[in-house]
Amino acid sequence: MSLSWRPLTRSTCCFSGGPLRLRAPSNFRPLSTAASGGPSAQGSAASSTRTALTLALGGAFLGLGGYYVGARSNGVNMEGATSRALVSPSPLPAKPIYGTPGDFVRAIDELRASLAGEAVTTARDQLEAHGFSTNSHHHGLPHSVVVYPTSTEDVVKIVNVAQKYRMPVVPYSGGTSLEGHFTGWKGGGICVDMSEMDKIIAIHEEDSDLVCQPGVGWMEINQTLKEKGIPLFFPLDPGPTATIGGMLSTGCSGTNAVRYGTAKGEWFLNATVVLPSGEVIKTRRRSRKSSAGFDTTKLFVGAEGTLGIVTEVTIRLAPIVPTTVATARFPDVRKASEAVIEILNTGIGIQCIELVDAAFMRVTMATGNPAREYDIADHLFFKLQGATPGALAEAVDVVKRIVKRHGGDKFWPAQSEEEAAAMWTDRKNAHYSGLAYAGEGAKAWSTDVCVPISKLPQLVYETQKDIERSGIMYFVLGHAGDGNFHSFLAFKTDEELKTVRGLVHRMVKRALALDGTCTGEHGVGIGKKEFLVEELGAGTVALMKTIKRAIDPLGIMNPGKLYPDDDATPAS
Amino acid sequence: MSLSWRPLTRSTCCFSGGPLRLRAPSNFRPLSTAASGGPSAQGSAASSTRTALTLALGGAFLGLGGYYVGARSNGVNMEGATSRALVSPSPLPAKPIYGTPGDFVRAIDELRASLAGEAVTTARDQLEAHGFSTNSHHHGLPHSVVVYPTSTEDVVKIVNVAQKYRMPVVPYSGGTSLEGHFTGWKGGGICVDMSEMDKIIAIHEEDSDLVCQPGVGWMEINQTLKEKGIPLFFPLDPGPTATIGGMLSTGCSGTNAVRYGTAKGEWFLNATVVLPSGEVIKTRRRSRKSSAGFDTTKLFVGAEGTLGIVTEVTIRLAPIVPTTVATARFPDVRKASEAVIEILNTGIGIQCIELVDAAFMRVTMATGNPAREYDIADHLFFKLQGATPGALAEAVDVVKRIVKRHGGDKFWPAQSEEEAAAMWTDRKNAHYSGLAYAGEGAKAWSTDVCVPISKLPQLVYETQKDIERSGIMYFVLGHAGDGNFHSFLAFKTDEELKTVRGLVHRMVKRALALDGTCTGEHGVGIGKKEFLVEELGAGTVALMKTIKRAIDPLGIMNPGKLYPDDDATPAS
Repeated sequence: MSLSWRPLTRSTCCFSGGPLRLRAPSNFRPLSTAASGGPSAQGSAASSTRTALTLALGGAFLGLGGYYVGARSNGVNMEGATSRALVSPSPLPAKPIYGTPGDFVRAIDELRASLAGEAVTTARDQLEAHGFSTNSHHHGLPHSVVVYPTSTEDVVKIVNVAQKYRMPVVPYSGGTSLEGHFTGWKGGGICVDMSEMDKIIAIHEEDSDLVCQPGVGWMEINQTLKEKGIPLFFPLDPGPTATIGGMLSTGCSGTNAVRYGTAKGEWFLNATVVLPSGEVIKTRRRSRKSSAGFDTTKLFVGAEGTLGIVTEVTIRLAPIVPTTVATARFPDVRKASEAVIEILNTGIGIQCIELVDAAFMRVTMATGNPAREYDIADHLFFKLQGATPGALAEAVDVVKRIVKRHGGDKFWPAQSEEEAAAMWTDRKNAHYSGLAYAGEGAKAWSTDVCVPISKLPQLVYETQKDIERSGIMYFVLGHAGDGNFHSFLAFKTDEELKTVRGLVHRMVKRALALDGTCTGEHGVGIGKKEFLVEELGAGTVALMKTIKRAIDPLGIMNPGKLYPDDDATPAS
Repeated sequence: MSLSWRPLTRSTCCFSGGPLRLRAPSNFRPLSTAASGGPSAQGSAASSTRTALTLALGGAFLGLGGYYVGARSNGVNMEGATSRALVSPSPLPAKPIYGTPGDFVRAIDELRASLAGEAVTTARDQLEAHGFSTNSHHHGLPHSVVVYPTSTEDVVKIVNVAQKYRMPVVPYSGGTSLEGHFTGWKGGGICVDMSEMDKIIAIHEEDSDLVCQPGVGWMEINQTLKEKGIPLFFPLDPGPTATIGGMLSTGCSGTNAVRYGTAKGEWFLNATVVLPSGEVIKTRRRSRKSSAGFDTTKLFVGAEGTLGIVTEVTIRLAPIVPTTVATARFPDVRKASEAVIEILNTGIGIQCIELVDAAFMRVTMATGNPAREYDIADHLFFKLQGATPGALAEAVDVVKRIVKRHGGDKFWPAQSEEEAAAMWTDRKNAHYSGLAYAGEGAKAWSTDVCVPISKLPQLVYETQKDIERSGIMYFVLGHAGDGNFHSFLAFKTDEELKTVRGLVHRMVKRALALDGTCTGEHGVGIGKKEFLVEELGAGTVALMKTIKRAIDPLGIMNPGKLYPDDDATPAS
């Protein structure tokens, strides 16, 4: 349907001093994918709750008007930019120069001409839904156009158009980012929504691997394997609606990382990537091991879509091992952490060790329907593994002994699979329990830092003290086996949001002071890039930028994300 | 002592048409490290067995004379190159331009002036020992100078000199490479021997990590941990004398990979690297997890010293888990591989699964002192893990059942720790047993490819057939749990070496045809670079070269290794 629509005053926009007015296509119907209850639809619904003012001014102004802002912010005379867009990209300007509003309009026309009609939309709610997120509290911006490729070939067409017109490209996968990874570029750009590329292409049970497209979710993969009776699973477990493309690009992990490691390990055997040049590469073969040079797959793991667009992935699968769940109460986080270290060093089958504080237990007891009568005290939640009943029982005994030795008590191993599932759900429901507890109209900021395990108690203790002083409703929990720590910070007013922002900022600074990282699993996006120089050093960040420039000389791939601004302006 | 030495006729060398004559310092004594029985000493001893002719002509000619060859091969008029060496490196030539013989002599003088006297040598046997290897059968070349840095600061000085005079730099660590990673550049260069940087800097037992210099060996690290009573170990287990620097740079693994993965996983938490610019970076902090962008540590893992020199590393340690060893006989490799797949998918504690063929058992029974009376048949050697006695016993039972189901028999679990160690030694002695069996004067080529596990039987079967036809004495063994497969190929004559070379070439082609890799763990060096385009595709190789050029625009870091030649000339 979008094919029929053309922006008004297109012929004059390149020269108009003011923002464009964009009329939404009168006949727009949400795309099937957006209506399917997927992330896009959620985002769309969320965005439609924004004020009429945002839609009337924000939507149109930030949408196409963004071209103008972008071009001007690059200090480019528009005709100049147009002609620049036609010359050879080298020698490169120090700062990327993007196309003009006119270039972008022509780019959108070419996208419509080269992709299926429904694959390209400039419908206002779609531009917004893909540029804002209810999951993040960073400054969002809509895109100029959203495209839905169905194949690697489609992505090549999109990147070639983006390259031709110097138009930023922002990949969008599960839409679960907490750090603004998929927000629009200030000057507008193409959002590439991978939700139509959601197929499992091949399952190799004998080789314990699976080939799929980036838009498929990890839970869907595991469900499919279960339905086929294949006793394997993909062990990276970030947010439930996360998809493979975003998981790879964010360098994700989750509660299983203590046993299986992260996306930066060896779970992504290879990736097919459309480079900013439009060229398609496959990073590696399917063998589990290779020492044929540095692994270019790893370049894209954690690159947040700034080096190319992943269109196919081979992932490694792990055997499903029987598990059970147990909880224990501790006098404080330090004692709990000491127990964690000793338990890990026994080498018994630990799939997860989650640390939660008394505040979390209060929230859990006050909301929902907890599996047990937990005490309001710091706890550890264990998910233990044993390939055989004897091994599982022995793992439980070992943990029980060590818990006791470190002052823990009320050790409770689940008495049935049902109870194990229910107890684990109590931990997994943290975010929703927290929101319910915080009450009507509350939002929450979920932070993410990681430190060497031995530093975790100090980090938690100092962070709790800091939050207590602020009066913000909160609780903390951590993937204690990895030193990865989150705090749930609730807010209702802009004033409280400001306070929360300060708490997050100080928590990151604290983690860095303890030889840690500003993000253990949520990624950088726009939310953490201001911390990268302090964490990695100017030289390492310069190396990352050197690689970015070498692979994406035009700077079209997800600009403004991941890499600290050259002028080191803190991210909003 | 070296400080007093200056080459003869230095003032005229830049203009002389012929090779220089280099007088070795009369008072040279081997460095303590070289005399300590380390790889240098071994290499030195090996090289001293070369013919007098090689020493008389080869040593000096290829040593300093190599400058001339190099400069000429780059088609550079020498004064031209000298002046080029002084101008800004950009715009860059398509092909690196190295310094002239005069530049290199001045570089060596500056190295001597800036490093401790004993840290710099041009002693002929040292240049040879570091450029040739008894472990590889590729074309070796000596270096122009060998330096022994003792600190990151020393390495910075070396790289700055190399950069100033456009002199290639070849890092040298354990000297165990099988693929010519540390052979000299045809035009001469600086070999940086890391053997003096062999300290363990810090052990963090609580965090299960350890900070060390690149020259320390993995076995030494594990021995140190054992002596300190720390129940942790570093699980990457390549050749026994391999050191951390080479292990990282090669992307190594070993028999433990089936349980612990490879160097490309998450064992290297961070690395301090001297970049080709002379700048020092630290790639990451010490937390176990980080999603702060793509992990630049991974760039150097498998880069074979072509992107920088690693001077300090933080490695992750794993808990020591009790193990036992068992063996089983199989009718053929296919049945054995089917058993391997089923065993792996149970999720029981498997640390290693090694496949060996009948030929290997014949060798083992005929040489040395085997732990048991093995049958001359295909076998699997298992190293099983169990954190508790019950878990270990159950793992043994599970394996026994599955072995039987797939036609295996003579399942033998070790009856004591001593027997377990002796049985494992039978597997580990493969190379030496093979050499003994092949007889006086025999050498052996140990190949390395890796395929998806399901393809392993076909690869082994076709390779065995091919070798049988050749009449070469051989056996095959594989890390069956990873699809990683080696064959031991013995030879005595140049004619046989030629035959072996052909067998290796065909084995690689076969692996690539089965969606595998030309190297599972030995790396590329000069031995496998001819296969990279076929394996990875031209686009991926171009991406690797783009990154190489961006980080090392002058091309001084280990030239001629890893990256296929632009003219795709097969490696010698």
